[in-house]
Amino acid sequence: MIMKRAHSQWTYALLLSLFIVPVAYASGGEEKIANAFLWIAVLLLLAKMASLIEKVGQPAVLGELVIGVVLGNLFLVGIGVFEPVKHDEIIKFLAELGVVILLFQIGLESKIEEMREVGGRAFAVATVGVITPFVLGYLVGMLLMPGLDSNAYLFLGATLTATSVGITGRVFRDLGKLRTKEAQIVLGAAVIDDVMGLIILAVVSAIVTKGAVSVSSISIITLEAILFLVGAIFLGRLLAPKIGEGFSRIHTGIGMKFTIAISFCLIFAYLAHLVGLAPIVGAFAAGLMLEPVYFDRFEKPAINNDIKSAVVNADNEIKNKVEKVLQRHTAQHLDELVGPLGHFLVPLFFIVIGMQVKLETLFDPKILGIALAITFVAFIGKLVAGIVAGPVNKYVVGWGMAPRGEVGLIFAMIGKQLGVITEEMFSVVIIMVILTTLLTPPILNFLLRKESH
Amino acid sequence: MIMKRAHSQWTYALLLSLFIVPVAYASGGEEKIANAFLWIAVLLLLAKMASLIEKVGQPAVLGELVIGVVLGNLFLVGIGVFEPVKHDEIIKFLAELGVVILLFQIGLESKIEEMREVGGRAFAVATVGVITPFVLGYLVGMLLMPGLDSNAYLFLGATLTATSVGITGRVFRDLGKLRTKEAQIVLGAAVIDDVMGLIILAVVSAIVTKGAVSVSSISIITLEAILFLVGAIFLGRLLAPKIGEGFSRIHTGIGMKFTIAISFCLIFAYLAHLVGLAPIVGAFAAGLMLEPVYFDRFEKPAINNDIKSAVVNADNEIKNKVEKVLQRHTAQHLDELVGPLGHFLVPLFFIVIGMQVKLETLFDPKILGIALAITFVAFIGKLVAGIVAGPVNKYVVGWGMAPRGEVGLIFAMIGKQLGVITEEMFSVVIIMVILTTLLTPPILNFLLRKESH
Repeated sequence: MIMKRAHSQWTYALLLSLFIVPVAYASGGEEKIANAFLWIAVLLLLAKMASLIEKVGQPAVLGELVIGVVLGNLFLVGIGVFEPVKHDEIIKFLAELGVVILLFQIGLESKIEEMREVGGRAFAVATVGVITPFVLGYLVGMLLMPGLDSNAYLFLGATLTATSVGITGRVFRDLGKLRTKEAQIVLGAAVIDDVMGLIILAVVSAIVTKGAVSVSSISIITLEAILFLVGAIFLGRLLAPKIGEGFSRIHTGIGMKFTIAISFCLIFAYLAHLVGLAPIVGAFAAGLMLEPVYFDRFEKPAINNDIKSAVVNADNEIKNKVEKVLQRHTAQHLDELVGPLGHFLVPLFFIVIGMQVKLETLFDPKILGIALAITFVAFIGKLVAGIVAGPVNKYVVGWGMAPRGEVGLIFAMIGKQLGVITEEMFSVVIIMVILTTLLTPPILNFLLRKESH
Repeated sequence: MIMKRAHSQWTYALLLSLFIVPVAYASGGEEKIANAFLWIAVLLLLAKMASLIEKVGQPAVLGELVIGVVLGNLFLVGIGVFEPVKHDEIIKFLAELGVVILLFQIGLESKIEEMREVGGRAFAVATVGVITPFVLGYLVGMLLMPGLDSNAYLFLGATLTATSVGITGRVFRDLGKLRTKEAQIVLGAAVIDDVMGLIILAVVSAIVTKGAVSVSSISIITLEAILFLVGAIFLGRLLAPKIGEGFSRIHTGIGMKFTIAISFCLIFAYLAHLVGLAPIVGAFAAGLMLEPVYFDRFEKPAINNDIKSAVVNADNEIKNKVEKVLQRHTAQHLDELVGPLGHFLVPLFFIVIGMQVKLETLFDPKILGIALAITFVAFIGKLVAGIVAGPVNKYVVGWGMAPRGEVGLIFAMIGKQLGVITEEMFSVVIIMVILTTLLTPPILNFLLRKESH
């Protein structure tokens, strides 16, 4: 009764609310934080609007980049409202955390065992697909943009090396071709060339920051990068089960499971930074080292028990099927727990990246020409890799390796932060990433449909 | 073969890695961000270690507070390593985002329909349980800490009003008594007094920031707060289904579902700030306004289809049971998606809150005495509320309303930011929250067991 009266009062009040005018601002100290809330919401919603691009067969990451490019260049037509975002410390931090989470997710999804299974052919494709575009990128860069520091060409070459695992996987999945031999090789090679790319990034970054150029110091840096990755993964795989066991004695809740995983990611990101590598290298290693089995002592997803009691009277065949589904989904539980953090942070990274593109530089026909040349070289480098794929459709493998996406952008960003990649070169890399990402889906689509006939 | 050789090289390399020494730091610009990664991981792990407190029947939030108090006062014994955390802008932002997410979660979990169902008795308990401690807190504050601004007593009274929904619910659940009438009334009343508490907070904050003290201006502020809450919820419930429908045309993925929900939370937090309310008020309203049914057009959890095909050959009774379980879990999917963000951010808020406690102030017997008096009043205020609970165990209801937790701390923090709550008073509030939270579980335990005989 009392509730009902309160309810009708509220109905009355909300009618009034339509005419109420927002009153003065609250205390100014909280202004910055409240503004960040608004920016995050607006950027995330725009990023999701940009996923319209998937309707025309393009991956969502491309939409986020394009939105970023648009927002970052609105000032050219007199709209300055998004300019503060470029210099916002909080957004910058969230974007950097986002790329760390992304590499952690990629690490979680690419298991060391699977990498071993796809075996030699994927390794060969990856190796050729890293070396060729790296060398071609270095040479073409030197040819078309002469007079720069040799580190700039190194970085340009490095941005061409790594295939985007996310984009490649999504293209094959969207076309329903995930289980073809070609897809298996491409996915395996994409994971391996990610690792190679991260080592190259470590080496190239160290060369820039420490000025090491001799063969012996490059060897040491390479060794160091490999040692960090391998050592971290080895130690992590040794310690993670013990840490999981120890913490499971304190609590076995899902929050604990999540916290251990995220803390691994952040601590290894920090350790990578500490030894002179990019934090993403550590995050990737952390993802690789964590296996669902380490979390067996923790609570299963809440749905498991409810489903089990719902089928308690079913016959054994059905029970077994249900049990298998539950096991498979429990193994993916960690990915699901990290997923929302990714949804929250990763788009911010790509938008921030996109916002750094200066469209003015594209109006320069010279830069556009260089970008097209680099893009051409980026495709050639991966098509050559397809040749060593063995008795499969080499074109499908080669084109499948073409999209660059995340890793290339991350390299370019780090290069820019180190002051090696110039603004022109940054724009060139962005164009290369956009074109390799944009052209691959329709070409793969064409090749795979032709094959089906 | 190639992979195998690579693998054995890696094995060799990782043996070497045990002897490698971390090399020099990377570029300094990224220093701050990498350090934040480490802080977050350390704080989250410590928070989870503190959940050991649950083993002795105490809620995890208490452990997080205590950890915060310890870390914030380690400098007293010469350990200064945690001092930078107190002034870290990034940690501060994440903590504030954490409390916004927490109130959003509480809003999501407390449905308007349910609030109507528990009806009059819960409303009566909530009303008495808000007014009594507010008045008692104001008077006792004035009596024991004379000479302060009257706004300080207002804030002190306000910190005593709101029962902690999270703590209360968890206590009853832990004791297996969630479905008793007493538990239903307490949970309903806790939700309602949260809303009342937030309105009081809005009014009190506005009085402080705008200096309004006349009856008419208090009425306007009260009306404004109610109008914002009710208007936001009304408009939100009107718009959310349409917004959901619009965005589902762009994409129906889980990332989209998550983004819409979080953006609602952040935008209403910003709007609340804009009209002079605390952002948490808007976040709570956003949680209240979102219903799972608005997201029917979006992808169901991935497990649903797999389970359905696993039981496709089962008889109809089992299929129906499974269908019900899937429906129930799908309705909770939004909570699950927001959950990881909560695990990531909420503990940071309580640790940061705890770190602001100055233990020196507690060594002052006068402050300790005041804290005990305020705690006594906090208990009395809620025990009086139990009297209007009707024909149930009034003691169980009264004690069930006692834990203060989150909301009281949030009030104290806002009061401190506004410069109204002094450091002594802040310490008093923290002690009150800790004691009401700490003493309630054993007392409820005793009362409920006695009843079972």
